[in-house]
Parts: sequence; structure tokens; C-alpha cells
Amino acid sequence: MAEDAYQALNLQTLGSRLGALPVLRARVGNDPGLWQIREVGDGNLNLVFVVTGPAGGVIVKQALPYVRLVGESWPLPLYRAFYEYQALTRQAARAPGAVPEVFWFDPDQALIVMEYLHPHRILRQKLIAGERVAGLGRFLGRYVARNAFLGSELAMKSAAKKADVALFAGNVDIPAISEALVFTDPYHGARLNHHNPALDALVAGLRADVALKTAVQDLFMAFASNTETLLHGDLHSGSVMSTAEDSRVIDPEFAQYGPMGFDLGMLIANMVMAFLSQPGHRERADMGPYQDWILSVIIDCMAAFRAEFTRLWQTERTGMLYPACLFEEQGHSSDPALQRLLTRIWNEALGFCGIEMHRRILSLAHNADFEAIPDPVLRGRLEARSLAMGRDLILARGAVGDAAALCALAGDHDEKG
Amino acid sequence: MAEDAYQALNLQTLGSRLGALPVLRARVGNDPGLWQIREVGDGNLNLVFVVTGPAGGVIVKQALPYVRLVGESWPLPLYRAFYEYQALTRQAARAPGAVPEVFWFDPDQALIVMEYLHPHRILRQKLIAGERVAGLGRFLGRYVARNAFLGSELAMKSAAKKADVALFAGNVDIPAISEALVFTDPYHGARLNHHNPALDALVAGLRADVALKTAVQDLFMAFASNTETLLHGDLHSGSVMSTAEDSRVIDPEFAQYGPMGFDLGMLIANMVMAFLSQPGHRERADMGPYQDWILSVIIDCMAAFRAEFTRLWQTERTGMLYPACLFEEQGHSSDPALQRLLTRIWNEALGFCGIEMHRRILSLAHNADFEAIPDPVLRGRLEARSLAMGRDLILARGAVGDAAALCALAGDHDEKG
Repeated sequence: MAEDAYQALNLQTLGSRLGALPVLRARVGNDPGLWQIREVGDGNLNLVFVVTGPAGGVIVKQALPYVRLVGESWPLPLYRAFYEYQALTRQAARAPGAVPEVFWFDPDQALIVMEYLHPHRILRQKLIAGERVAGLGRFLGRYVARNAFLGSELAMKSAAKKADVALFAGNVDIPAISEALVFTDPYHGARLNHHNPALDALVAGLRADVALKTAVQDLFMAFASNTETLLHGDLHSGSVMSTAEDSRVIDPEFAQYGPMGFDLGMLIANMVMAFLSQPGHRERADMGPYQDWILSVIIDCMAAFRAEFTRLWQTERTGMLYPACLFEEQGHSSDPALQRLLTRIWNEALGFCGIEMHRRILSLAHNADFEAIPDPVLRGRLEARSLAMGRDLILARGAVGDAAALCALAGDHDEKG
Repeated sequence: MAEDAYQALNLQTLGSRLGALPVLRARVGNDPGLWQIREVGDGNLNLVFVVTGPAGGVIVKQALPYVRLVGESWPLPLYRAFYEYQALTRQAARAPGAVPEVFWFDPDQALIVMEYLHPHRILRQKLIAGERVAGLGRFLGRYVARNAFLGSELAMKSAAKKADVALFAGNVDIPAISEALVFTDPYHGARLNHHNPALDALVAGLRADVALKTAVQDLFMAFASNTETLLHGDLHSGSVMSTAEDSRVIDPEFAQYGPMGFDLGMLIANMVMAFLSQPGHRERADMGPYQDWILSVIIDCMAAFRAEFTRLWQTERTGMLYPACLFEEQGHSSDPALQRLLTRIWNEALGFCGIEMHRRILSLAHNADFEAIPDPVLRGRLEARSLAMGRDLILARGAVGDAAALCALAGDHDEKG
């Protein structure tokens, strides 16, 4: 681009400003006059343009210098696009085909040109609409396992991993959002919070629960002070795009080093919330089978996570942790160590899952699964189930041994409500 | 200094090379011809010169470009002096008076000019000699508590802490030493290992113990992937200098971000090893009271750690973790959260303690507490106690509730042997 100083794109300027970029000429068309441009950013932070033309289409994603959901009063550095670019690059290498291909990155304009996923739609919208995605659980479990394992010192050389931790430590403002909105605000009357008034009594109960708040802060300390692997950092159903049988993970701008259970927990939470919110979106007759399908995604996801993590443990354990010289090379199985690690990851994932099930109802960024239910009484009844189950997971997650037990717990909360 | 290219100092060149430095002229004397220079580095990595003269004395510490203990075959970057300097600066601010004052730092020469501690001697030598140090436990517990708390996001602003994590992530080669020598080598036949042949059967048993090796690797993953606070990183009795009533902590070149329990565990391990090795250094008649004193240091250390950590929790909890808005400002005590955190730190400390009690007998860097015992049979009997107790701590540390229980366990191992 000709100019160096950042300027937000808009529908009028995109063609003239990006018209000379070889990657757009090749992938959209040589004549910007023939480009169709739509702004589709429905997230909380960025501009997202779909640019199509005679040669095809691309996504142009540009960071805004503030939180879009809140406005210019919450400034947010543009350098987050650099971290999104770095994360997309690493994830493409670790889980080939799982993320959109990146064609161009302009750090000054905080702008990434990437693959136009078509006819993919945001998974959350599909879950609200009652649409199935073949292979979804397997895809997600494999994606998380590969990134968790290959981004850690189970696989990476320690020097390379430490250098990457240093690189991502520069991304302070994006983690600060999770730190506030996920781990802190739900549990006190923070300024940006809002919740369904029907929940007032329940919310007061949660905020008065010292054991709960303590357990949340324990998990917060693990989130903030743990660099096990490079996380996606915001892996909910709004960060997945799917067709009926293909899925991709998008938007890793919240990428940070953190505990292996975090992505898994946030992902499962959003599937559980999709499950619990179904009575707000369809009649009881259609609902049962679709709810069963959602739970089967959780089961498949965890089975795929465990299978892929195990496969990588057996074949790509090239880092300094749990080295073969201590196990296989001495004729000892490392499987007990693997099982302990998987148990710890699962336990932490359940805790993060519970917190996500709270913050989406109590903090700033709610999710459409509940928000799209017009009747506040019905919505409140379903949100209350998410709050109650979240509390169970945070405080008593040791009793939830596997994905089947988690799904049974979700069923209990669904029927009880 | 005139030259930029690194050159190791020696007794002949120190005066001419540093003679013009204002800090040495002021603190040692204007005429380098009147300086007395001794090389006293008894550690594993560096040159350490005591330079005295008419105006007083200073320490000149210079990193060598290799591991002194091993030789030039193990190169080690000079930039570690930069991290030592950074760590000394932070520790001086967090625990005033606990570390030697730094007068000058030359990054090109990997050289720090610092306070000459006199008549302080290395604590390990005093423990071998049976000398008491008044207030030692209290000093050490307070030093660890202040650094642990004030270097974490319990106290620090998150952006400043993340920037510091990024800075220290550059120090890859020094943590690599701990990663190999502490967490890996003791549990397999690593090239640089050596141990008392009297221990062969015991060592084989430890290396065949999959549960033990798994627990060690769990702690290794916590050490390598946790950035709770800035650690000293090598806090054994060779990193403490004392007179009969004054103590300082030296040599933080192994500083890295890591779990709060690490420094505490390594410190306690070295006190326990001092306790267990006493039969190698004196007659039984004198031994009991001195062993009791060593255990009292552990008790005092943990009491001071808890008291100081608690005081800071109540008065300087200005970071984002366990914030007052979730507890005190809602009229709720945060004490249950503090107690849980202290319990977790203690539990991890015991695990690291057990590992340190192994690696000092099995890996490259042994400690003089055992090594200075000439009779290999007696030495082996005492070392065996350290191995056995270390195993107890790694595998069953949940049963060791407090410092008194740890001291009782040390007593059991001492009497049983």
C-alpha cells in the first residue's frame, strides 16, 4: 500500500487503496471496478470485508484501533493484527487445513488478506438454526490437540518455544480483555456488565460465593501465569466457520501462551450453551435429536482430542518434557504419564468451561445462543441453567470424569430447569 | 573500559583494565598498584574477584563463556550477566538489603562490580562447620515471600509483568542447565552424571520407578511452563552468604519466571541435606543441638514466608489476580483464597525439594554437604537417606502438611538410616 499511516478501510476506499495489490488482482480480479465489496464483521473488534470479483474472492480483515463492540472509549492497539497473523501461520503449520490461508499481511495497516471461506457460515448461527455439521467434533478435537501438543515443550525445542513466549508476551492488551471480561467482571458489578434482570437473585448468589470466586481466581492465575502452549485464546462457536461437512477455525487474535485446557474448556462451554439454549430456538419435537447431536459433538471432540494427543505423544514427543530417555529408552511405558496429563488438562478445561458459561451471561460479551431468544422469561430460565451448571463445573469438576459425564450433567441441568 | 570485545579478567590484568573505573577508584582506592586482588570463585560458572585497597573493597564478578565446572566443551552465553544484573536490581527493590548492592555493570565484559560482603561466608560452609546464623530462617522466608509476591501479578501491573516475562525469556541457556541437571539427568544414565557406587542399587530403583519419574516430569512441566513470579532460580545454601547474624542472597543468574514454590523447595532441600549430612561432619554429642537448629531454620523460614506473604496479600495486592473488587470490596474475606494459594505453593515446594535432594547426589553438580565426607560408606548411607526422603516428598507430599511435618519426616529418615 502506498500510505504507511494507518487508516481504516471502508466500502468506498477499499478498491482504490488495495486495487494495486498483486494478491487481490490475482485472486479477485485485475479491475477493482468489478469488485463487489461487503463489510461482514459481526465480531466485537474488527472490520471484515468480503471482496469478490471475476477471479474469485478474498477476506480483507483490518483491526480497528478500539473495541468495536464498545467504541472509541476502549482503545485497542493495532499490533494485535500482527499476533493474529503469527498465530494463523503457526496454526496452519500445526493443523494443516484447519485455518484460512493467509495471502498477505500489512502490519502498518493492521490488515490481513486471507482465504474467503465459502459457503461457510459462523458455527454459532448454524447451532441456533439447528443445522448439523458432519465431522465437527472430530475436526475441533484434532485442531485443539495438534495446537496444544505441537506448540508446547512436549514437541518444540525449548529455545524456540521460549523465543515465541517472548514474542507473544508483547500482546498485552488482548489478554487484558479476557482477564477482565472472563475472569473478573462476571463476579462483581463491573461497569460494562449487563444481565437479564430475571437472573438478579442467582447472580447475587454467585457473587456472594467465596468458594466459587476463589476457584475462579485459581484458574485465572493458571491462565495468566502459564505458558504451556500457544492458545487460540477465543475458541468459541463464533470462531468456527462451517458448511454441512467442512469446518475451519478463524480469528486467533486472542492468541497467547496459556494452559492446554483453556481452548478446550471455552469450546465445550459454547457447545453446552448451544445445547441448553435450544428450547429458545425450536419446538420440543425437533429438539431432542438436535440436542443429542450437539452432545455427540462434545463426545467426538474429546475422543478426537485424546486420540490425536496420544498419537502425537507416541510419535512427535521431541521436546524436553517427559523425554523418551526417561521412559521408552529405559523400557518403561510413558502411558501413565500421558494419562495423568490428559486428566489434568480435562480437569482444567472443565473449570474454564464453567467460567465461560458464566461470563457469557454476566459480563460484556454475551452470545447469540441466549441473546437471540426474544422472551426474557424463557431466556432467563435457560441462562439460569448455564449459571448453575457453570458453578457445578467450577466447584465440583473432579466428579466429572469424562465427556460422557459432562454430557450427562448437561442433560440433568436441561431436564431440571 | 576501553576495549569492547570480551576478555576474561585475571589477577594480572584486572588492575590495569579496571584501574580507571571511577567506581573502583572510589570504593577500592585511586592507585590500582595498591589493590589486593584474589580470585575466589568457587561456583560452577564464573570468575569472582575480591578487590580490596585503602578505600575498601568490592567484588568483581565476570561471566565466563563456558561452564567453569565442565570446561570449554560446554559453552554458555555471556548475556547471563545481564540477567543477573536485572535480577539483582529487582530483588534489591523487592527485598531491600537482602542482596549485595550493585555498583557497576558492563554488558560487553559480562561484568558486575558489587558490594564486598565481609566477613560473610558461604552458608553451606558454615552449615558444614556447624556454625549458627541468627535470624537466618526469618531472613530467607521473608526474602522468598517478598520476591514471590511482588514479582507476580498479585502485585505487579499485568503489562509490566508480561514485558518482564518477555525480557527474561531471552535467557534460554541458563534455564536449560536446570532443565537438564535438575529435572532430567538424575533419572537416567546421563553422560555428565556421577554418583557414589554404594548407591547403585538405590539409584537403579529410582530410575525404574515410573510413578516417580512421572511426578518429576509433572513438576518439570510446571517449572518450564509457569511464569508466576521471577525466581532466584538457584536458591541453595551456596547462594547465601552469612555472618553470625547477617545474611544476603547472591548469584541470581539462574533467574527466570517460574512457579512460586521452586525457590522455597530448593532452599528447604539444601537445609534438609545439611541436616541429613551432619553425621559426616561431627561427633554425635555435638550433633543433636545443631541438627535441631537446622530444623528450626526451616520452621522459621516457612513461618516468615507465610507471615510476609500474608502481610503483602493484605496490604500490597495491587495486581489483577484475586482482586479486592471480588473479595474485600464485596465484604468478603479473601483469606480462604490466600490459604489455598499458600497450600498449593507449599505442595509444589515439597515436590521441588524432593527433586533437589535427588539431583545433588545423582547429577553433575553435587553439594559439599555430602561430597566433603571422606568415607564413601558413611557418605553413601547419608546420601541414601536423602534419596529416600526425596522420593517420599515427590510421591507423597500431600501428607506433609507443614514445616513441622517436614522436619518430623527428616527426623524419621535421619534415625532410620
